[in-house]
Amino acid sequence: MIITKTVKEVKEHVREWKKQGLSIGLVPTMGYLHEGHASLIKKAREDNDIVIVSDFVNPIQFGVGEDLESYPRDFAADCKLCEGLGVDLIFNPSPEEMYLDGFHSHVGVDVLSQNLCGKTRPIHFNGVCTVVTKLFNISEANRAYFGQKDAQQLCIVKRMVRDLNYNIEIIGCPIIREDDGLAKSSRNTYLNPEERKAALILNKALTSGKSLLLSGELDADKIKKAITDIINSEPLAKIDYVEIVDTKELQPVKQITGEVLCAIAVYIGKTRLIDNFFA
Amino acid sequence: MIITKTVKEVKEHVREWKKQGLSIGLVPTMGYLHEGHASLIKKAREDNDIVIVSDFVNPIQFGVGEDLESYPRDFAADCKLCEGLGVDLIFNPSPEEMYLDGFHSHVGVDVLSQNLCGKTRPIHFNGVCTVVTKLFNISEANRAYFGQKDAQQLCIVKRMVRDLNYNIEIIGCPIIREDDGLAKSSRNTYLNPEERKAALILNKALTSGKSLLLSGELDADKIKKAITDIINSEPLAKIDYVEIVDTKELQPVKQITGEVLCAIAVYIGKTRLIDNFFA
Repeated sequence: MIITKTVKEVKEHVREWKKQGLSIGLVPTMGYLHEGHASLIKKAREDNDIVIVSDFVNPIQFGVGEDLESYPRDFAADCKLCEGLGVDLIFNPSPEEMYLDGFHSHVGVDVLSQNLCGKTRPIHFNGVCTVVTKLFNISEANRAYFGQKDAQQLCIVKRMVRDLNYNIEIIGCPIIREDDGLAKSSRNTYLNPEERKAALILNKALTSGKSLLLSGELDADKIKKAITDIINSEPLAKIDYVEIVDTKELQPVKQITGEVLCAIAVYIGKTRLIDNFFA
Repeated sequence: MIITKTVKEVKEHVREWKKQGLSIGLVPTMGYLHEGHASLIKKAREDNDIVIVSDFVNPIQFGVGEDLESYPRDFAADCKLCEGLGVDLIFNPSPEEMYLDGFHSHVGVDVLSQNLCGKTRPIHFNGVCTVVTKLFNISEANRAYFGQKDAQQLCIVKRMVRDLNYNIEIIGCPIIREDDGLAKSSRNTYLNPEERKAALILNKALTSGKSLLLSGELDADKIKKAITDIINSEPLAKIDYVEIVDTKELQPVKQITGEVLCAIAVYIGKTRLIDNFFA
């Protein structure tokens, strides 16, 4: 497995692989890899000749007061996991390598970024689109893999690729959960044992909401209220948002007529967790 | 010469050319081609196996009240010129083909977009960066050619390519002028005979400013004043801006210590013309 910190070195390898006609799969990550990431890497390994994992805590997608400094990191463990899954190259650049002196460029997607996490994280998705654009260009990947846990991110990246004609296929992969239902996240490591138990309320509330919807309830407010009430029953939980949006423009719906995304963000203590379902 | 209006068809040809290992040069234009464009096409023809010209009046780089509707168009003449210069493919999409239903993506470069034309055309360069990104992705060009007449655009596109790691080389080409010194521009067609004569004041003023600089004057305000005075001597001319900026961040300089861009925008009647020099 090639481990590199420079764009130049990645591009040299990519040029060689392209010359040989090999397909490339990219798994963009912020490191501290867990089974959610592993599922993306395994899918990439199945689909492509070459698998590149990027391991980079992207500063420009964090707002002031967010957890950029404390975001968990363990590059040695990440390398071990990637090596075990047959990754060909792991790209672990410094912020200075990614954002050169005089960096002023930005990429973003309006409308889809305005609700859900975009409300409390106004610069987040521009930061994501910008770094993802860079990673697409550096890796020249044929396919890139994103988890459905970050549902809004997945929708936005897909739209960006369509709108801007990127020559890459975006593959969304299902949420991977702990045995007790908590969605896997690098941020789960922030939770103390009591909070870890309290965090189960997210999946519990969403499961109830989904049952309600599948049983025929099409009034979004009623489903949101049911989810909200369950989360509020947990003293350690504080809701950031509970929302049901259409899957095209990610705008709130009143009456459910087509496919929707039901997404929530909840603070458990100081840790902000997200989860969702499509239905 | 292939003439096509669809992204799909361009991509099919590009895939075939790439498979054969051919290099591709892109000349992005808004059509109504003149000798300035021809010089870009000729350079692209020398440097590459394949030359693609895009011919698209890009609506998202025009602000309210600008000349989107009246912008001159003559696609038949453009095809003739391209055919004569050995262009392989001319891409002439509709706005609907470029901006699909639900298009919400944008690309831009801050700081470099804020001065010069950016002051009076606040959305212009985001529109340029967005369409250029699309054209780069659609054409998968190895090189793209831009005229130095649009000096700010050239600097911004170069920065975008560097910042976002596009796999393309940006080639800037010299300003092409009429025999009497007026920089070639599709917008020159708006000028009536009297205005056409008055428009010579741009090149005259810049030539004087450049002489002053090369003779050792390093006070930017003095050079700007000399240029301004000459332009103001022409009754049909109305200055939008006369500015001297550094070539890295395009910020106004007081004392000239390194390379600068001296750029002007002047209304001749209702027609806004630009011109510049690097020194």
